[in-house]
Amino acid sequence: MLSLLNISNIIENKDYFYILTHMYPDGDALGSSFALCSALQNMGKHAKVLCNDPVPEKFKYMQEYIKEEDFNPEYIISLDLADTSLLGENLREYENKINLCIDHHISNKKYAPLFFIDSTASATCEIIYRLFLNMNIKITKEIASCLYTGIATDTGCFQYSNTSSSTHFIAGKLIQSGAPIDIINKRLFITKSKEKIELEKIISKNLEYFFRNKCAITHITQKEIENLNIDDGNIDGIASIPIRIEGVDIGITIKETNFQENKISVRTSENIDANEFCVHFGGGGHTRAGGFKMNGKIEDVKNKILDHVRKIVNQNK
Amino acid sequence: MLSLLNISNIIENKDYFYILTHMYPDGDALGSSFALCSALQNMGKHAKVLCNDPVPEKFKYMQEYIKEEDFNPEYIISLDLADTSLLGENLREYENKINLCIDHHISNKKYAPLFFIDSTASATCEIIYRLFLNMNIKITKEIASCLYTGIATDTGCFQYSNTSSSTHFIAGKLIQSGAPIDIINKRLFITKSKEKIELEKIISKNLEYFFRNKCAITHITQKEIENLNIDDGNIDGIASIPIRIEGVDIGITIKETNFQENKISVRTSENIDANEFCVHFGGGGHTRAGGFKMNGKIEDVKNKILDHVRKIVNQNK
Repeated sequence: MLSLLNISNIIENKDYFYILTHMYPDGDALGSSFALCSALQNMGKHAKVLCNDPVPEKFKYMQEYIKEEDFNPEYIISLDLADTSLLGENLREYENKINLCIDHHISNKKYAPLFFIDSTASATCEIIYRLFLNMNIKITKEIASCLYTGIATDTGCFQYSNTSSSTHFIAGKLIQSGAPIDIINKRLFITKSKEKIELEKIISKNLEYFFRNKCAITHITQKEIENLNIDDGNIDGIASIPIRIEGVDIGITIKETNFQENKISVRTSENIDANEFCVHFGGGGHTRAGGFKMNGKIEDVKNKILDHVRKIVNQNK
Repeated sequence: MLSLLNISNIIENKDYFYILTHMYPDGDALGSSFALCSALQNMGKHAKVLCNDPVPEKFKYMQEYIKEEDFNPEYIISLDLADTSLLGENLREYENKINLCIDHHISNKKYAPLFFIDSTASATCEIIYRLFLNMNIKITKEIASCLYTGIATDTGCFQYSNTSSSTHFIAGKLIQSGAPIDIINKRLFITKSKEKIELEKIISKNLEYFFRNKCAITHITQKEIENLNIDDGNIDGIASIPIRIEGVDIGITIKETNFQENKISVRTSENIDANEFCVHFGGGGHTRAGGFKMNGKIEDVKNKILDHVRKIVNQNK
C-alpha cells in the first residue's frame, strides 16, 4: 500500500484530475470528492468530480465553490468507492481506468493499481484531511465544510462506534479552519420538516410489539403517504425507528407502495441476521439491514412476517 | 472572577467537600459533579454529591465508582447551578453556604463569594476538564466517562452551536483516557425506551403551530406523565422537539409537574434570545435554551406565553 507521502508526490506531479465516487452519494462521498477537487483547483490544477447521480439538495452547498471546467483527465482518483460496481452505469467507462483509490471501507476490493485504504478512519474525509496535512494544503473554510460534512455524516454526528479520538481532533481543527458547523449540523441532523414530524407520528401510531418486545413492527399505507405529500428520500429514514427501541432485536417497517404492494424494511440487532431473514422472503441485504417485497393486505403481510419472526425468536431462546 | 489556578489551590488545601448541583439533574450536572467527586476521592479527600432529585436510571453508571461516606462539609462547591433557587427544597439549607460556584450558564447569578463562570464552555464538564489539567489530576476511565457524558448531553452529541473546537479536542482526549463512547452514545442517543416512544407520541399529538409556523408549542400533562411511568431523565429530552422543526424560531414545551404547576422549556433559533424570553417570565438560561415556571391551567399558561411570543415575532418582522 502507498503512504500518504507517496500520494502527495504523485498528485503534485500531475495536472488534470478526474475524481470519481460511488452512486447514490452520501456526505462522505461528496465531502471527500469536493474537498480534494477544491484543493487541487486552489493549487492551480484542473479537477472535476464525477458521480452517477446528481448531488442531493441537502449537500449542494459543498459544490458551490467548485469551478466547472472541461478537459481530458491525466489521472483518475476514486474516493470512498469500495468496488467499481458502485460507480453506476453513467461512469461504467472509467471502471478500468482508475489510477489511485483512497477509501476507508474494510470491504474495499483494491481494484486500482495504486491504493490507500485505512479502515480505522471513520470516513474517507479523515484520510483526505491527513493527506492535506502532508501536502501542506491550506484548509480553506470551503474545504473544512466538505471534510466536516463527510466525517459528521459517516459517524452519525460522532455517535457511532467508528468515532475515534482522532475523529474529534480533526473535527476541532476543521472548526478552527472555519467549518460553519452550526449551519451544517442544523441542515443535516437537527432540522425536521413538518411533514417528517407527521410521518413519524403515523409510524408511532402504527407501532406494535411482539414476542416479549423483541420484535417491533410498524407500517404506513399508500393513502397515508399521499396525504403527507412527502418525498421518497424523506420516507426512507423511518426504517431505523423500530430497531432503535430498547430491547428490540428485529424492527420491521411495511410501506405500502401501491394498492396491496408492499416494500418491507428489516433492521436487526447483533442477535438476528437481517440478510438471512429477508432471503427467506425473496429479498436480501446486509447482516443488520435488509429488505424484500410482498403483495397483499397489510394485515396479512404482517401476519406472514410475524410467523417467521416467531420461529427465529424461539430459536434464539 | 477566580482563575482555575486559584481554584486548584483552594481545593488542594481543603479535605471535606460537598458538591451541589441543580434539581432535575441532567448529564452535565451529574457528569461534572461525579467527575469532581471521583477526582477528590482519588486524591484521598472526602467528597459527596448532593442533589434534590435521585439520579435518573440512564445516568446511574456515573455513580457506580463513587464511595458513599458520611461527614460534615468543610467546603461547599456548586456545579452547573445558575441560581440557588434551582437547588430544590431538599437542599434549601445550603442556599447561603456555598463557598465556590463553577458554571457555564451566562445567566449565572454569582450567588457565591467565589466563582468561575465561563459561558463559552459548552458544558460545565469542559471547565472541570480544564481544572483537572491545571491540578495534574489523572483522568481515569470513570472520570472520562462522566466528563464525556456532560459534554455530549449539553451539545446534543456535538450537534448544537455551543460545540467549539475545544469541545472536540476535549472529547478526543476523553476517548484517549478510556471513555467508552460506543456504550454511552448507544445508551444516551441511539436507543429509545418504549416509554420514550410513547412520550414522543404525546408531544407530537399536542404540537401546535402559531405565527406562520415560527412558533411551535406542545405540552404534557401530569396525568399523561403518570400514565407513561417514565422517569424525569427521560422526559427532559422532549424540550428540543419543537425547535427542530423546519422554520421554527421558538419551540416551547410545557410540562405539568404538579396540579396546575408547570415547568416551561424554551428553545430558540438565532433570531430570538431564549434567556431574555425566559427572564421575562422570571426564569433564565442561555441564548438558545432557557426555562421558567408558571402556575395555572395549561391552556391559560399557553395563552400567556403566546401573547409574549406574538410581540417578539412581530418585532422581528
